[in-house]
Amino acid sequence: MADFKVTPWEVEGKIDYEKLVKEFGTKRMDARLKAKLEKLAGGSHVFLRRNFFFSHRDLDLVLKDYESGKGFFLYTGRSPAGAMTLAHLISFLFTKWLQEKFKVNAYLQIPDEEKFLFKQKLSWEEVQERTKEDIAHIAALGFDENRTFLFQNSEYVKNFYPVLMKTAKKINFSNAKAIFGFNEQSNIGMMFYPALQIVPTFFEKKRCLIPCGIDQDNYWRPQRDIAESLGFYKTAAIHSAFFPPLTGPEGKMSSSIAESAIFLSDDEKTVANKINKYAFSGGQATVEEHRRLGGNPDIDVAFQWLYILFEDDDRKIEKIREQYMSGKMLTGELKQILIEKINAFLKEHNRKKEKAGKIVEKMKYSGKLAKEMWGRTI
Amino acid sequence: MADFKVTPWEVEGKIDYEKLVKEFGTKRMDARLKAKLEKLAGGSHVFLRRNFFFSHRDLDLVLKDYESGKGFFLYTGRSPAGAMTLAHLISFLFTKWLQEKFKVNAYLQIPDEEKFLFKQKLSWEEVQERTKEDIAHIAALGFDENRTFLFQNSEYVKNFYPVLMKTAKKINFSNAKAIFGFNEQSNIGMMFYPALQIVPTFFEKKRCLIPCGIDQDNYWRPQRDIAESLGFYKTAAIHSAFFPPLTGPEGKMSSSIAESAIFLSDDEKTVANKINKYAFSGGQATVEEHRRLGGNPDIDVAFQWLYILFEDDDRKIEKIREQYMSGKMLTGELKQILIEKINAFLKEHNRKKEKAGKIVEKMKYSGKLAKEMWGRTI
Repeated sequence: MADFKVTPWEVEGKIDYEKLVKEFGTKRMDARLKAKLEKLAGGSHVFLRRNFFFSHRDLDLVLKDYESGKGFFLYTGRSPAGAMTLAHLISFLFTKWLQEKFKVNAYLQIPDEEKFLFKQKLSWEEVQERTKEDIAHIAALGFDENRTFLFQNSEYVKNFYPVLMKTAKKINFSNAKAIFGFNEQSNIGMMFYPALQIVPTFFEKKRCLIPCGIDQDNYWRPQRDIAESLGFYKTAAIHSAFFPPLTGPEGKMSSSIAESAIFLSDDEKTVANKINKYAFSGGQATVEEHRRLGGNPDIDVAFQWLYILFEDDDRKIEKIREQYMSGKMLTGELKQILIEKINAFLKEHNRKKEKAGKIVEKMKYSGKLAKEMWGRTI
Repeated sequence: MADFKVTPWEVEGKIDYEKLVKEFGTKRMDARLKAKLEKLAGGSHVFLRRNFFFSHRDLDLVLKDYESGKGFFLYTGRSPAGAMTLAHLISFLFTKWLQEKFKVNAYLQIPDEEKFLFKQKLSWEEVQERTKEDIAHIAALGFDENRTFLFQNSEYVKNFYPVLMKTAKKINFSNAKAIFGFNEQSNIGMMFYPALQIVPTFFEKKRCLIPCGIDQDNYWRPQRDIAESLGFYKTAAIHSAFFPPLTGPEGKMSSSIAESAIFLSDDEKTVANKINKYAFSGGQATVEEHRRLGGNPDIDVAFQWLYILFEDDDRKIEKIREQYMSGKMLTGELKQILIEKINAFLKEHNRKKEKAGKIVEKMKYSGKLAKEMWGRTI
């Protein structure tokens, strides 16, 4: 029995990623594949260098297709419900980087029915309100406006309806139940939903690469069973580990537990308060002890956040690690570094978000790819 | 145990309509309600006079709403797959008559995904081809172009997506299973489909009246359970008996058994051949015997078709009955009357169908109601 749990809806306990890869049947990103990806990309990314994206399906084949000139495309998404946190940016940031490096199309799905169907008390109207906000956050990240198509299912459904129905016809209740854990009380919208999340993998007759959290891998397992019978490729994926919640190095950050998360809308003071108050520390109980024994960066959430996302200078992060471990740097000082980094990031992010209206319009409707997509029925 | 079977997909055996009404929990159309409907309509229809529409749900409330000035609306549909037969016209003809008499809106749904989802071997493209043909047949019937909205689900889905999701969220797998008999092998498209067939009952905040075969009643049972919680009315319905197949008075006409049906595309010779060859006769084995004993119109399919659809003059049909029963009219003569009636009807029908292009365009897109509907999100 594993003492951790990973489903698309729940992540609990201390994750054994080695075990997870075996259980899910994905592959570790080995050194050779990573090097090849970096070589073809002409650069690296902090998520790769620090092994935060650690697992994949068919990434080797994607790179082969890229080398042969056939190309590939990117797909990721965001299901609106609660407010967006830093963790929600991970897949988007990596997708954006891959797009920039490989000059490929990216499809950003906003499944604005999912959480409505899965959460009893959430209304359609609340989700729609949330959706606008989320899209503005995504637009602030700077995707290539002419190579990106951002779409809400409720708006674009007509265009993908034929392939949606073809997908739904191939998945039966017992498949869906085995993978998603549906039961007699599940509503028929939930049971249908997996088809909606699969559909974007069929937007091009090339291999699709999905950057996502490893917990989302489930959703595309039926895709790999049915894709070829529909004349498409099995989708590839590149999986990240979980962005740790403020409250400790286990589980994942969740927008439904406010003290576990930094929201993109948090102001400077809130960020400082949350980090100081909740960020789980690997430091010692007293300053004296800390000076003597040093801190443990492996369980220190402030250090982890710097390592994964906020300090991409390799020399600087190693210096922080060293100083923290040696006791030279105190927990409060470490937290202060993170607070400044987060606040600088959020300030810039929200400045871009305020001006994102035109970008949203391009990614949704009038950019080169968006225009093409609105003219297609798939 | 009943020795007949009625589901939305199968009708078998000699139907005991009295039993069916009890089993389904609908109500018989009694003499008073029929008289009221005819009075408000300012006329009668052969389907009413001959009790072919024999059962209902809440028709009394619909008429009350009409009298009070609140009004109601009509909804029926056609799911393309095989070629259309005479039997497929029944609900449309009655809907058209009700629209004419009550001057109300009629919504004609073409669920162009249903049969694709339910029939393993049918392709999406075949259904789409079939759809065009079916729509032309429906347009030939002469609905009020400004009070009718004919829509294909694959085209109009975006406009009703919110209410579709709200509907799907209210129906769970165990409801759906109990009513539609789904099992582990049912695909997730089939399981979702009931929501699509319910949605048009929510197109207006008035009572919806659905003219349909009694075998379709199942589909709207969940509607009546959930409508009020979504702020709409429980749908009403008016149910027809089954149009008997050529091959005998039991079961119902099916486009998948060619000798059981007259197709709307059959030419004059084919009609004559089919009626002469297959129409189940209530006559006697020899002319002599027939002259002596007479025929039995109650089991004679040619007589039944005249009675239900093709001879709406009450005196004429009674005269035919009398002559047939007395042996004065032979089976061949009875069949000849029917052949002439069908061929006259089909000739006129197909003439109108050839010129239906403009009507299709109005009912789908540019008529008054259609234009309104394309401007709405429901």
